[in-house]
Amino acid sequence: MIQKAFLLCLIFLSMAALQGQRLRDYGIELGVLRPGPLNAITDVPGVHVGHTTLNSGEEVRTGVTAILPHSGNLFQSKVPAAIYVGNGFGKLAGSTQVEELGNLETPIVLTNTLSVATAMDAVISYTLAQEGNQEVRSVNAVVGETNDGYLNNIRARIVSKQDVLDAIAAASTGPVAEGNVGAGTGTIAFGFKGGIGTSSRVLPEKFEQYTVGVLVQTNFGGVLTLNGRNLARDLDRIPGNFRYDTDGSCMMVVLTDAPLDARNLKRLAERCMLGLARTGGIASNGSGDYVIAVSTAETNRVPYEPSGMTSEMPVVHNDYMSALFLAAIEATEEAIWNSMTAAETVSGHRGTIQALPMDRVMEILKK
Amino acid sequence: MIQKAFLLCLIFLSMAALQGQRLRDYGIELGVLRPGPLNAITDVPGVHVGHTTLNSGEEVRTGVTAILPHSGNLFQSKVPAAIYVGNGFGKLAGSTQVEELGNLETPIVLTNTLSVATAMDAVISYTLAQEGNQEVRSVNAVVGETNDGYLNNIRARIVSKQDVLDAIAAASTGPVAEGNVGAGTGTIAFGFKGGIGTSSRVLPEKFEQYTVGVLVQTNFGGVLTLNGRNLARDLDRIPGNFRYDTDGSCMMVVLTDAPLDARNLKRLAERCMLGLARTGGIASNGSGDYVIAVSTAETNRVPYEPSGMTSEMPVVHNDYMSALFLAAIEATEEAIWNSMTAAETVSGHRGTIQALPMDRVMEILKK
Amino acid sequence: MIQKAFLLCLIFLSMAALQGQRLRDYGIELGVLRPGPLNAITDVPGVHVGHTTLNSGEEVRTGVTAILPHSGNLFQSKVPAAIYVGNGFGKLAGSTQVEELGNLETPIVLTNTLSVATAMDAVISYTLAQEGNQEVRSVNAVVGETNDGYLNNIRARIVSKQDVLDAIAAASTGPVAEGNVGAGTGTIAFGFKGGIGTSSRVLPEKFEQYTVGVLVQTNFGGVLTLNGRNLARDLDRIPGNFRYDTDGSCMMVVLTDAPLDARNLKRLAERCMLGLARTGGIASNGSGDYVIAVSTAETNRVPYEPSGMTSEMPVVHNDYMSALFLAAIEATEEAIWNSMTAAETVSGHRGTIQALPMDRVMEILKK
Amino acid sequence: MIQKAFLLCLIFLSMAALQGQRLRDYGIELGVLRPGPLNAITDVPGVHVGHTTLNSGEEVRTGVTAILPHSGNLFQSKVPAAIYVGNGFGKLAGSTQVEELGNLETPIVLTNTLSVATAMDAVISYTLAQEGNQEVRSVNAVVGETNDGYLNNIRARIVSKQDVLDAIAAASTGPVAEGNVGAGTGTIAFGFKGGIGTSSRVLPEKFEQYTVGVLVQTNFGGVLTLNGRNLARDLDRIPGNFRYDTDGSCMMVVLTDAPLDARNLKRLAERCMLGLARTGGIASNGSGDYVIAVSTAETNRVPYEPSGMTSEMPVVHNDYMSALFLAAIEATEEAIWNSMTAAETVSGHRGTIQALPMDRVMEILKK
Repeated sequence: MIQKAFLLCLIFLSMAALQGQRLRDYGIELGVLRPGPLNAITDVPGVHVGHTTLNSGEEVRTGVTAILPHSGNLFQSKVPAAIYVGNGFGKLAGSTQVEELGNLETPIVLTNTLSVATAMDAVISYTLAQEGNQEVRSVNAVVGETNDGYLNNIRARIVSKQDVLDAIAAASTGPVAEGNVGAGTGTIAFGFKGGIGTSSRVLPEKFEQYTVGVLVQTNFGGVLTLNGRNLARDLDRIPGNFRYDTDGSCMMVVLTDAPLDARNLKRLAERCMLGLARTGGIASNGSGDYVIAVSTAETNRVPYEPSGMTSEMPVVHNDYMSALFLAAIEATEEAIWNSMTAAETVSGHRGTIQALPMDRVMEILKK
Repeated sequence: MIQKAFLLCLIFLSMAALQGQRLRDYGIELGVLRPGPLNAITDVPGVHVGHTTLNSGEEVRTGVTAILPHSGNLFQSKVPAAIYVGNGFGKLAGSTQVEELGNLETPIVLTNTLSVATAMDAVISYTLAQEGNQEVRSVNAVVGETNDGYLNNIRARIVSKQDVLDAIAAASTGPVAEGNVGAGTGTIAFGFKGGIGTSSRVLPEKFEQYTVGVLVQTNFGGVLTLNGRNLARDLDRIPGNFRYDTDGSCMMVVLTDAPLDARNLKRLAERCMLGLARTGGIASNGSGDYVIAVSTAETNRVPYEPSGMTSEMPVVHNDYMSALFLAAIEATEEAIWNSMTAAETVSGHRGTIQALPMDRVMEILKK
Repeated sequence: MIQKAFLLCLIFLSMAALQGQRLRDYGIELGVLRPGPLNAITDVPGVHVGHTTLNSGEEVRTGVTAILPHSGNLFQSKVPAAIYVGNGFGKLAGSTQVEELGNLETPIVLTNTLSVATAMDAVISYTLAQEGNQEVRSVNAVVGETNDGYLNNIRARIVSKQDVLDAIAAASTGPVAEGNVGAGTGTIAFGFKGGIGTSSRVLPEKFEQYTVGVLVQTNFGGVLTLNGRNLARDLDRIPGNFRYDTDGSCMMVVLTDAPLDARNLKRLAERCMLGLARTGGIASNGSGDYVIAVSTAETNRVPYEPSGMTSEMPVVHNDYMSALFLAAIEATEEAIWNSMTAAETVSGHRGTIQALPMDRVMEILKK
Repeated sequence: MIQKAFLLCLIFLSMAALQGQRLRDYGIELGVLRPGPLNAITDVPGVHVGHTTLNSGEEVRTGVTAILPHSGNLFQSKVPAAIYVGNGFGKLAGSTQVEELGNLETPIVLTNTLSVATAMDAVISYTLAQEGNQEVRSVNAVVGETNDGYLNNIRARIVSKQDVLDAIAAASTGPVAEGNVGAGTGTIAFGFKGGIGTSSRVLPEKFEQYTVGVLVQTNFGGVLTLNGRNLARDLDRIPGNFRYDTDGSCMMVVLTDAPLDARNLKRLAERCMLGLARTGGIASNGSGDYVIAVSTAETNRVPYEPSGMTSEMPVVHNDYMSALFLAAIEATEEAIWNSMTAAETVSGHRGTIQALPMDRVMEILKK
């Protein structure tokens, strides 16, 4: 009896140890390029990430995640940017101005579908209040979302302006919390618990060792696939009605220190959809799949008040983009996996969503 | 003394009589197609428009304008829609979902730049609270804006959720108030007072007498031109720095009862930019020029929960679009003029903006 | 001696038996939806495919493939269509008119990069000469291409107008030749011999058993992957310079009998890129990746001379698109594989390209 | 009697003197910015224009116009470029690659609708044959067109490869022939004879005196308007059926020596549609209205074989674009007028098209 309890305890402990881990902790390496030191979006120099996790009572499973391309005044010192719409069933704010002007002037904030307005309001307040912005009368807040309305009572719209400001204030360099945190607290992917995930790639020397980092908020579906296996079949998650079992959304943020202009950033963003496809994602009708791409290169900052008609800046030639493309694909694929391997089982508003059973996945892969 | 007061009163009355008029009241007819009975967007059957005008103290010159394509539950009974971005320096909310799904599921709300988040929040509340929407967990609010930060203390963000709900509640059929009302309370066009304007066109019998109605919120610049005359020169409004003297924005909403699909609605929307060009607009770098196009045809409503995989519906052939295009161009041009002829001189936050001096314009035209 | 000849003959026969096969002949099934009877684009009723294969001397390895959505007069009875540009490094003709008008009025022709003009000329001649088109003065030829300039002496521009007319004339229903035929005669994929491939999927009953068929011309690169398993490493085809080893192009044609409008056809087209991603494609800078999507539904034909302003027609609701999306993804993935498994080793203009060694692939998969 | 004959002769002579003139020769100045020395696209340094005019017998009224952004090897030294599709009922070749890569690698060629393939073929031959291009195996020919099928027997497809090569070879700097020349030989605008027209604007010193030049091939309709004055009514050219009386196309080419990237070139291109709108153009359903924009700045050339991953180059800030926008609008408007004032009455394939009666126009304007 004691032996059995001991054994169960051991199993539990080892499972707990495994939960909250990253895909590489299971010995699985995706892709052919190498990750950065943290295998995270924060491998791109200067990038800050912060979360506000709202997880209380039986109904609140939501939050906010903020990504800052640099820690200075983003409005005064904008960054080249582009947004690619993989499937536009979503409420992303700020896309048309990024498309027209080719730059981003605020932190990127992710939250739940019905809290985009609150997050915009907070980002505007944050920007108006920043030192040096006293005369600013126009702010383009970029806010993305996915719908956590199964685990979270989304109609209650619990996220407050302060929650958003807190996520921005909490943003830091270094390792990024994944799984059930921030805007990923209540999300679902491939029928299992999704969340926040991140990964990065460093280019070979020939490509000047630029870094590409990706952060995702996973809340989508499809036919989960890994390393030669259609896992959906074995895990009993084959789509049937193609509505509740494939819909959801995926927000992807891709940052790089390579000096890309908006045109090539948009091409880079587009490649993240190919990373999503590798996991089995299908960009279903009800999925809001968006990619926000930014270059953090200091040489390419866009001043709010330029001192003359033109500026000199480096730009990457088209011919050198393919390595960056592959980096974005691989980092997206792995970030999606990390969002699931790091997530834990959650019960909430309308039921319980299991974490991806990685022990079972490992068994299937070994077959 | 009494005589002087009487004279002043007379002057005031005659000015009032002239101000607040429409372009046709001056005997000027634009275009070759005929307007509808009201020469307003509300000539399109079922369309409702409502304003909340915020005009108080020395600093508040702003407001909200709401346009409802039909008075039913827009979320349950969506309308085919498209959005065309003429120049994307703006904060329009909701565009990517309209582009992807080809429909609109909320009232269209216009307000000032820094109040888009508040308006979105209000539109979401409005929709969640509507009868029949108890299970709705995702709402795509479409909110447009222009920047009234010269006459209005825009950083104070005075517009409240209730102001937005009031504009929606006030929406009615019939004549539409123009000039310094709703979202046009504090706007500026071609260096003169802009505002809300509207106009319509009815197609010839060959085109089944469909109606095209346009409503604009004018806050942009360029080289004002009317009926053979570059008025900018005579009125001393030639652009020089091409920044403060041409920037601003123009929101355009075009509705029709013709059964257009989203693709042809987008083409229709694009034509409104040609109407703007006729007035001398240049879509300057800092101008957020957007067009929202909707078909109100009852046959083409998009149900939230369709009963089967396909529905039968009529669609207008490409070959019949040109007359609709001309109608949209003419109605936009005239709506812009009406927004200015109806507007009155306003003093506010940072100075005074004169109404377009129509007496002077008439003199110039007669030369 | 005779023994040796016999042995060689046996080897040749067994190789021939294996070469020219399809992926399913190796017991490998991709995806979760079932293919149509032919597992080919011709499972879509009425679709015709024809090839002209130019394979002579040491330098000519090219050809033409024609796809006809129906066998009638396509100009008089156009079909709803859309084109999605995955990566626009290509010379596809006819895309802007398809995008604007939402329809296709000619056969779709695929050939090599420098022969697009010849193919356009032929398609125009074909259309002008068709009975009933005597008054036609404007034809939008849709011609796609990939660059077969390694195996084929592409600068010689050997393809003639007659070759194109022959491919159109040869078009038939029934099984489609794959591998080194038509426009795939000289193409290369993932460092192995590519070519023409096709596949199809039939939707479940809930989705009215509509068919989605895909035909591809593969000439691109990336990191070859089967069902998520990285084969590139074992086959020694990891990209290094990201130029000659990943570039190329992929033309994809997706047809369905589901009555889709142009907007949803474009969304369907976009999903084919996700199928390409599953094989390891990265849409590299130099890759011209295009998808042409067409609905063959007889109810939705677009008459050249419509009899009135509107027509009634069925359209699939957005909510039912996801199953079609998955079908397009799976059929694209499998069509790409079929293009390679059916192709044979080819020597030509600048060297030799090996067929994909399927025996080796099977070994790797068994590991 | 003699007196009368003398008088008639005098009138005829003065009319002849006026025909073939430019709008400014009538004392009419459009816009507020000043033209360059030639008031032509060739005011942009290095730009070359050449025509082949095919005008013979009773049926041939067509031709070719070539525009070279610089006189070097355009393939080896590409130029930043963008294409804006105002209304995509047209057969423009080469747009998707320009959109993706942001550059142009061949001369721009304009011709008639059914000769695009021939022109592409010629441009490819031209490029393959250029010194230094011996290894080139991929060429993106940019060819635009309008349909001259009323005056020209377009189905005969009379334009030859040599005609295209001749236009390229004839290209020179200096004044540009207008009216019934090159690709404008058989075109029709607003019901009168259209053709080739050009104009330019030089920016004020604050904007570094950059030049914007426009060349148009006019073959479209609408409600002819000069400086906002509706001329269509007086000239009896009000559209009625909105098909044959408004359709046609307008090709616009806008070049500048300002160092614009592809994103801002696309915005510049978009503004040319506003210039077209000023003349009364409506971008009717059947009109193929395209704008090709190029920066000729030597600092921003795109090498075929870049020597490293990045290059430094100047780019104009968004905030300085508005003056360029106005220049593009004004130059387009005036180029369209010049195409008509320079054109003469033509009889051809299916009838006669009158030149715009400028004497009548002058009378109307004086009213």
